[in-house]
Amino acid sequence: MRDIDEFTITTAVKQMTGPKADPRLREIMDSLVSHLHDFAREVKLTEAEWFQAVQFLTQVGQICDDKRQEFILLSDTLGLSTLVTAQNNRKPKGCTEATVFGPFYVEGSPLYNHGDDISNGAKGTPCFVTGTVKGLDGKPVAGAELAVWQSDDEGFYDVQRPEVHEHQARGRLRTRDDGSFEFRSILAVPYPIPHDGPVGKMLDALDRHPWRPAHLHFMITAPGYERLITHIFNETSDYLESDAVFGVRSTLVVDWNRHEPGVAPNGTAMTEPYYTVSYDFVLNPEA
Amino acid sequence: MRDIDEFTITTAVKQMTGPKADPRLREIMDSLVSHLHDFAREVKLTEAEWFQAVQFLTQVGQICDDKRQEFILLSDTLGLSTLVTAQNNRKPKGCTEATVFGPFYVEGSPLYNHGDDISNGAKGTPCFVTGTVKGLDGKPVAGAELAVWQSDDEGFYDVQRPEVHEHQARGRLRTRDDGSFEFRSILAVPYPIPHDGPVGKMLDALDRHPWRPAHLHFMITAPGYERLITHIFNETSDYLESDAVFGVRSTLVVDWNRHEPGVAPNGTAMTEPYYTVSYDFVLNPEA
Repeated sequence: MRDIDEFTITTAVKQMTGPKADPRLREIMDSLVSHLHDFAREVKLTEAEWFQAVQFLTQVGQICDDKRQEFILLSDTLGLSTLVTAQNNRKPKGCTEATVFGPFYVEGSPLYNHGDDISNGAKGTPCFVTGTVKGLDGKPVAGAELAVWQSDDEGFYDVQRPEVHEHQARGRLRTRDDGSFEFRSILAVPYPIPHDGPVGKMLDALDRHPWRPAHLHFMITAPGYERLITHIFNETSDYLESDAVFGVRSTLVVDWNRHEPGVAPNGTAMTEPYYTVSYDFVLNPEA
Repeated sequence: MRDIDEFTITTAVKQMTGPKADPRLREIMDSLVSHLHDFAREVKLTEAEWFQAVQFLTQVGQICDDKRQEFILLSDTLGLSTLVTAQNNRKPKGCTEATVFGPFYVEGSPLYNHGDDISNGAKGTPCFVTGTVKGLDGKPVAGAELAVWQSDDEGFYDVQRPEVHEHQARGRLRTRDDGSFEFRSILAVPYPIPHDGPVGKMLDALDRHPWRPAHLHFMITAPGYERLITHIFNETSDYLESDAVFGVRSTLVVDWNRHEPGVAPNGTAMTEPYYTVSYDFVLNPEA
């Protein structure tokens, strides 16, 4: 302990962990310290670079508030979110794949009835969304809670608009007895992740764009099944091959169909063009 | 890009870096992403653990302000600061060793004359500090700027005391023509690093104590020489074998001598016991 150098420090740090530490925490921290140190040695991190990193992480923390989570954004853009999602959601073939959660979910969004317009004032081209929730055995899952959230036609979620004080383009539904659901919302469009903060500056410096392809977020929960957090993507969207947060899965990319003005599938008379999209979700039974 | 899993994500993230990225930044980020992903795969990080990490890092960022730098504390306690200091300050034998900077340095502290009392009201047992600054060739370094900072007898730096609005127990001196310096301050005592925040909670969870052995901080700069950031430690202090931030080097541990009331070396009549300590710093010439 009196003559630590850049090599012996790694063991010294691990040895400092006391006997009362939780074994899982010890395992995590031992691995973290080893990899953090290996990284710093591998690139021969300089003191100036270290200080830049300290300043960057501080800025990431300081821009967070009850509506903005820049560390999730950092994790998303560095691929860590996708990695963690993937290794914790290995589902049997036939189940709907999971993808990243993202930073814009809000608890307690309104519970809607089937057919309701969940956009609740958010601007965009109307879009009718239908589908079913089934188990891996093909049986409908009745009463599954389906939470949906998305951005508006300018690519902003309600929580990114200081002037919006209610839930827009997000809500919850419970599937019918046959597992089906339907709601009206707006057409999802590609949007840049918030890039006016430190993560945006990092992407700039890495010569990376901040765009995500058009998508709808879903979180589906039902007793007896694993929770599913996923998106559905629009096949015609830009950025499907370069999603800034690495969330695209080919099984989640579907056709969104454009329709001229007329009578929508649910009987609504539409005076403007509108879209329809449908997706059948398959849940994995709990072990 | 449409079917990334927890293994292919690492290459996918690296490939996203664009051609205009600075080569050194690319090198650093490629290594960081590899090690971060290896860590998450190695421990099979769960989604709940990932979210705990996001919350922890957010708290570390949010407690930072112009006087508190919790990310430096995190780096210090995880041994990263010592690693970076060591690999960037390999000096020839005979030079004074560097050690961690710590989070309590303040720019623009008062410039004192030799013999002045830099404690400036901070409480503690008086301590007279003397020494010299020389080059590796043994020649005195005249006019070297020596910045010193330390905690008071309760283990707090001035910046940790909201009621203190001036520099206490910190200051700058310029070495005399013979390289010597002398000032009065107070006896350094062991103290816990700030442990009322997220890093303190982490240390608790790791069953680690937050204490540092008694030390004085120095930063010495002089034209033609590498900057030296170091401490001197008190040989009789507790925690020399378990410094919470891994800063001790055997060559920096010296005797601090206690004296009964009487006339101090600089002629001051002392009515209370006092200490003396001396250290001769050796700077490395710039390459």
